[in-house]
Amino acid sequence: MTEIPKTNLQWLLAERPVDRAVKESDFKLHEAPIPEPNDGEFVIRVIYSSLAPVMRFYMLDGAGIEEPLEIGDVMRGRGVGEVVRTKNPDYAVGDIVHGKMGWQQYAVADSSPYYLMFKVNQRIVSVSTALGVLGMTGFTAYFGLLDIGKPKPGEMVLVSGAAGGVGSSVGQIAKILGCKTVGIAGSDEKCKLLVEKLGYDAAINYNSGDIGAQMDKACPDGIDVFFDNVGGEILDEGLARINKYARVVSCGQISQYIGDGSPRPIQNAYKIGRLNALMQGFLIYDYAPRFDEAERDMVPWIKDGKLTYQEDILDGIERMPEGLIRLYDSKNQGKQLVRVSADPF
Amino acid sequence: MTEIPKTNLQWLLAERPVDRAVKESDFKLHEAPIPEPNDGEFVIRVIYSSLAPVMRFYMLDGAGIEEPLEIGDVMRGRGVGEVVRTKNPDYAVGDIVHGKMGWQQYAVADSSPYYLMFKVNQRIVSVSTALGVLGMTGFTAYFGLLDIGKPKPGEMVLVSGAAGGVGSSVGQIAKILGCKTVGIAGSDEKCKLLVEKLGYDAAINYNSGDIGAQMDKACPDGIDVFFDNVGGEILDEGLARINKYARVVSCGQISQYIGDGSPRPIQNAYKIGRLNALMQGFLIYDYAPRFDEAERDMVPWIKDGKLTYQEDILDGIERMPEGLIRLYDSKNQGKQLVRVSADPF
Repeated sequence: MTEIPKTNLQWLLAERPVDRAVKESDFKLHEAPIPEPNDGEFVIRVIYSSLAPVMRFYMLDGAGIEEPLEIGDVMRGRGVGEVVRTKNPDYAVGDIVHGKMGWQQYAVADSSPYYLMFKVNQRIVSVSTALGVLGMTGFTAYFGLLDIGKPKPGEMVLVSGAAGGVGSSVGQIAKILGCKTVGIAGSDEKCKLLVEKLGYDAAINYNSGDIGAQMDKACPDGIDVFFDNVGGEILDEGLARINKYARVVSCGQISQYIGDGSPRPIQNAYKIGRLNALMQGFLIYDYAPRFDEAERDMVPWIKDGKLTYQEDILDGIERMPEGLIRLYDSKNQGKQLVRVSADPF
Repeated sequence: MTEIPKTNLQWLLAERPVDRAVKESDFKLHEAPIPEPNDGEFVIRVIYSSLAPVMRFYMLDGAGIEEPLEIGDVMRGRGVGEVVRTKNPDYAVGDIVHGKMGWQQYAVADSSPYYLMFKVNQRIVSVSTALGVLGMTGFTAYFGLLDIGKPKPGEMVLVSGAAGGVGSSVGQIAKILGCKTVGIAGSDEKCKLLVEKLGYDAAINYNSGDIGAQMDKACPDGIDVFFDNVGGEILDEGLARINKYARVVSCGQISQYIGDGSPRPIQNAYKIGRLNALMQGFLIYDYAPRFDEAERDMVPWIKDGKLTYQEDILDGIERMPEGLIRLYDSKNQGKQLVRVSADPF
């Protein structure tokens, strides 16, 4: 368990991973004073910090997702933490919030949309879930699958990145809804997890032989919903096997976040038009007005043991870069978090 | 004006255009007796017959759109015609209908869904419009643009195949809805038509220099709605320039109907996911319950001269193959039809 910190250690961006993978030396550990809030602000002690594949883009210039970070900026990231000082009437000391906190021990925020702060109301499960199954990750699974994928009972739902934070929820929710589910992951160990722990009907190891042939075997009647977290070759092989009126949820493209930056051409994109299908991306924050609806559905599933979640928690802020690189190396099992300070709950 | 025929000339499929373009010798003209209706059937004298790019797939085996034709079958196609004999209580002699009639002078049909028969109710404009602006073509423009494209006033709508049957309606409807419109076509002559007759704000000749650079110039703020009838390189260049939340209506892929059969890979498909965009294909017949709605909107636009249409009519059933090949050669100006028999209206 990490102690309550007396300093504010921060990870700064030191180098951009241009045309290459992220490495530890892209970041620099820095010691800053614990911040004081100005009017309208509040100070959060970060408890858990979340790692996500998109972070490589934060590090690069002009990625088009958010403003690029400057060299020397605190690395951007989401966290869950406890309000410890406040000059904002909407946030009291002791509130648990999640939102943009950066890779640091103490964060300052205000009510502006930039910080995307949401309060954690439930105490049924660890507040770390606000960074996972009961936060953006689980809500991404929920809204991507239900709102874009629109699965019907009996349909075949294929999930790539199936052992990851989003994918593991997608497969279980699809199963709760009565679908057949096939998951794709990068190792036999993960594939075992998919079938034995996450209820997938079958699993495909993309590092073990012909992906297309494995899909043919696991999805002999084609794919109705493809929840894709990976992009690239796996997206392409899935598109080759979609059924008429298929829905392809283009949720992530982790395979395209590494490498030389030029995305892999997709041979089977034409199938979208040819088969009256749909491919759609989405921004989870656009669903913010409906987060309550997701929580309302998901809490009972979690309580009933139908929706399990797995967290992969590293201890200590020192391990943030390691946590990020684990994602690109497919080493994480479940949602990758770092415990930045003691969890009092 | 074509006479009322005394025989039933039919075009039969003679050869499949495997791995090559369609040619006239793929078809064989055949003389059959004028058919008699059995119970539940009616006989239609075909007045206009419609040519469409999809027909090459009808000629090939296992194209996945409809049952493949056998060699010697009457070529499949849609037409508008007059009921001349009937043993079906729902269809009276003199009714004007459109639906599947084949490449022939007289067709037999019944009420089964196979024939997709719809009655023509309006007599405000030529019944040939049932094969164009007031039929599947115009309805494709209407529902693809409104239901998938969801254009908002002021948005940039890019249309490929902009001088074609669907495209020419898409551009005008987008303009009626207050959008900026840019059309793509294959010749300076067509581009002139786009701007001078169809109200496009700008036109791009894809046979005249760098398509991407032309798009950059015509759509300096990016593309919000891309109504794509072409696929291939033009789709790819458009995808490279879509804005966040763009909607790509994947309506047709005429560029992929010719050539060696292996579709061109799409470099920028990843932008759909990255930019929270949408790409969707559709089957116009799924909108059949809403055709009335389209007609209700479009007839006043036509009456007011805001929605014009262009027909490219060849005279005589002998010219059916020529009409089809004109499409693949981009020679048609507007909806390609053949007048198969006299239009009495």
